Amino acid sequence: MNRPTTSAIGPVSLGDLAAALDLELRGDPEVRVDAGATLAAATPGQISFLANPAYRSLLISTRASAVVLSASAADDCPCAALVSESPYAAWARVLQKLHPAPTARPGIHASAQVDDSAEIDPGAEIGALAHVAAGARLGAGAMIGPGCIVGENAAIGADTRLVGNVFIGAECRLGQRVLVHPGAVIGGDGFGLAMHRGQWMNVPQIGAVRIGDDCEIGANTTIDRGALEDTVLGCDVRLDNQVQVAHNVIIGDHTAVAGCVGIAGSTRIGSYCMIAGASGIGGHLEICDHVVITAMSTVLDSISEPGQYGSGIPARPLRAWQRILVRLGQLDRLFRPGVGKN
Amino acid sequence: MNRPTTSAIGPVSLGDLAAALDLELRGDPEVRVDAGATLAAATPGQISFLANPAYRSLLISTRASAVVLSASAADDCPCAALVSESPYAAWARVLQKLHPAPTARPGIHASAQVDDSAEIDPGAEIGALAHVAAGARLGAGAMIGPGCIVGENAAIGADTRLVGNVFIGAECRLGQRVLVHPGAVIGGDGFGLAMHRGQWMNVPQIGAVRIGDDCEIGANTTIDRGALEDTVLGCDVRLDNQVQVAHNVIIGDHTAVAGCVGIAGSTRIGSYCMIAGASGIGGHLEICDHVVITAMSTVLDSISEPGQYGSGIPARPLRAWQRILVRLGQLDRLFRPGVGKN
Amino acid sequence: MNRPTTSAIGPVSLGDLAAALDLELRGDPEVRVDAGATLAAATPGQISFLANPAYRSLLISTRASAVVLSASAADDCPCAALVSESPYAAWARVLQKLHPAPTARPGIHASAQVDDSAEIDPGAEIGALAHVAAGARLGAGAMIGPGCIVGENAAIGADTRLVGNVFIGAECRLGQRVLVHPGAVIGGDGFGLAMHRGQWMNVPQIGAVRIGDDCEIGANTTIDRGALEDTVLGCDVRLDNQVQVAHNVIIGDHTAVAGCVGIAGSTRIGSYCMIAGASGIGGHLEICDHVVITAMSTVLDSISEPGQYGSGIPARPLRAWQRILVRLGQLDRLFRPGVGKN
Repeated sequence: MNRPTTSAIGPVSLGDLAAALDLELRGDPEVRVDAGATLAAATPGQISFLANPAYRSLLISTRASAVVLSASAADDCPCAALVSESPYAAWARVLQKLHPAPTARPGIHASAQVDDSAEIDPGAEIGALAHVAAGARLGAGAMIGPGCIVGENAAIGADTRLVGNVFIGAECRLGQRVLVHPGAVIGGDGFGLAMHRGQWMNVPQIGAVRIGDDCEIGANTTIDRGALEDTVLGCDVRLDNQVQVAHNVIIGDHTAVAGCVGIAGSTRIGSYCMIAGASGIGGHLEICDHVVITAMSTVLDSISEPGQYGSGIPARPLRAWQRILVRLGQLDRLFRPGVGKN
Repeated sequence: MNRPTTSAIGPVSLGDLAAALDLELRGDPEVRVDAGATLAAATPGQISFLANPAYRSLLISTRASAVVLSASAADDCPCAALVSESPYAAWARVLQKLHPAPTARPGIHASAQVDDSAEIDPGAEIGALAHVAAGARLGAGAMIGPGCIVGENAAIGADTRLVGNVFIGAECRLGQRVLVHPGAVIGGDGFGLAMHRGQWMNVPQIGAVRIGDDCEIGANTTIDRGALEDTVLGCDVRLDNQVQVAHNVIIGDHTAVAGCVGIAGSTRIGSYCMIAGASGIGGHLEICDHVVITAMSTVLDSISEPGQYGSGIPARPLRAWQRILVRLGQLDRLFRPGVGKN
Repeated sequence: MNRPTTSAIGPVSLGDLAAALDLELRGDPEVRVDAGATLAAATPGQISFLANPAYRSLLISTRASAVVLSASAADDCPCAALVSESPYAAWARVLQKLHPAPTARPGIHASAQVDDSAEIDPGAEIGALAHVAAGARLGAGAMIGPGCIVGENAAIGADTRLVGNVFIGAECRLGQRVLVHPGAVIGGDGFGLAMHRGQWMNVPQIGAVRIGDDCEIGANTTIDRGALEDTVLGCDVRLDNQVQVAHNVIIGDHTAVAGCVGIAGSTRIGSYCMIAGASGIGGHLEICDHVVITAMSTVLDSISEPGQYGSGIPARPLRAWQRILVRLGQLDRLFRPGVGKN
């Protein structure tokens, strides 16, 4: 198994789509579409969407057979329209219909190495050159992609997919319908060190990682096991690629973390937070629910009020920036009496 | 082999622990403990610790059978106390006793691919689906986890462990007792390019990577091979996850580097330095011993004095930050005569 | 196969080198060299280079048998000189002669898992424990290293090398002579989410990744597949380690991106750009050709003029930096009438 994360299912009628997804159809219910495409690239037989009004000019000239859009844009639609108050979410649901995620083809590839003591649901799929260690458990419909490693006594919930080359450490537990992208490492040791007579000593990391249902873990993302207790992701937590989650971090339900973010140890992040790319979150902090962190910010204090926070600095032409840097170094003198600009 | 990085050994008496670790015991030496836990979560039969006085209130109500702490906190301890001037280091040593790292189970898994010319110590362990190339050498007690790749003529020292899906490039050499976490890549090519007639040319990277004893390399961390000479880590160097070490970097003994740090080529970092998370260190710099870099800083100049350095900016509510950004752009005018705030 | 990325070929005469590379030789054409080395470390029989005048003092005392350098430095050369107007590029070409990249040893390792429907050129090499899925195509001279995974219907061009533990997603296409370092993930899902009734929904990512000829992809770098259309790298694009390229990014020919850079979705970067380490590029931007971004900068706006841009702040001694941070927070008051420093 090294299958796509989506696969086409062939033509579907607009009438069926509208009924299945509870959308208003303006147009011929017999028209059929078999794939999604952008407004500019769509050809007859394809469906597109308009979620951002800035692209409205593309709507008028689209060759798509149908477009998902809001009621306010529907009048301009040159073809059939599927109308929704939240066209982007409706579009996601349409695409999921046309390009569903594949399901497990039950069985164990001949080249996979599965310990006799592992409990493999007969509905699970284990791909080529995967390794499932002693005592591990796989639920129904679980898909263990090629090259994946599932550690001792780890548990992989029903319909959870490890795409390929994923590492799951011993004792870690993933819920149902979790999607883990290639190269992710879940359950490496936390970075726990104590200095003893001039030498670092490892503090054994005896916690594990616990991940709730419906989470997504990006490619080459790392989530460390806890020191004494577990590192925990709630349900529907979404981590992009190359995110680093240190030991004993707790992330609440529905929080989304963009690429290259690092979260230091023992920090607790609430629900429905959004952390933009390349930000760093310090250790031992509490971030409440509904916090938005803008790109490339450094969070060093706890946040107890919902809202947006940031410290990223937009790049400028280098000479202008260098002048600012010089002035930054001289800033203090502006505040001191009797000195300053003159 | 995809075993935990620690394993419990069963109950140990406090008397034995105190004697083995040279700690002062206040309490019954016959009391036995079998696991570490936090003060709040510990149950009878477990041991905990107090290293940060801020958690002293938890000490009074702990249900642990014993606590590792300082003499000054011992009077408040409701159970047996193991007293140390450096309670965190003592705690690390107690945990290492109760949860020791596993040792090699000598042998080569039937699915591993080991070249005939590789020199494998009979005391080494090679896990499922691992690959050891021609001319590689493994010392006694070396543990090559599942999915690991050891390149041609690479050398892995005694008791060194590659946890899983680790890549060791050709000719690279790791010392003894090195611990390499999953997904780490040691000995990829350095990023060496020369422009020739409008096209990039690769500058062959003919150096290797050399890592001393007792180092730890985090999950998905990358250490590039040198251009002409080697990239070198001393002894007891500790790298967290997703650290990038470019070609010809040299890192001194006992230096610790937190997650997501990038170190550019040919930079030399001293001993006993600490680099906090997500910082970037420029190329061709010299950082002396005992330097601390705070989180998300950008080091662009050599540092010749021990001490703390930084340039990270703590995030604020976004409107406040945006106002600062505007003022930053206007800063120069405050310094010019005849213009400014009025 | 887990071979080095270079291999020595034995001694070559300076006369042959000069002729093959069209360089001016000053010295005995019969002298032979077999390896490159730094000026300081080179021994007789080795060749070195001087590209940076700062190292001229090392030239005088080098023991190398030959040095690649500019005409202006040649007079100081104590041994044979290979003279070039661009000595660093000439050096790269000399090294490529002495330490060429290995070529494929055609054949499929017994432990590799190759689907019957994959089209493998007889001149391709597939290493130990690699997996090539249904419908994938490998060109002549392609080298699939140990542990690599090539997804369904993916295409790997002639002489392209996946070094080891590389993941290529379904439908992705790599050109010729591409070099992909260990742990890279090409074709993971883009981070596409839509909120629906308080729950994130995956937006199916039905695009792929398309990479032109002569590109290089660093260790543990990730390139996501497109949402509807492809993520695209032109020709001769060079990505260092741990770079994150989000869905639908387009990168122009000859652009080089240093380690730890993150590029958010749908951004289009021109040709001959250089992005320095640990910078972050926002989404939906247009960066024109010949733009240089300095280290650890945050690009949040499109750039339409070639030149250098930045926002990285060099680290200072921590107390000095903390004073600046305080002043930064007070900056606004300097601009308001009647308040300020006094």
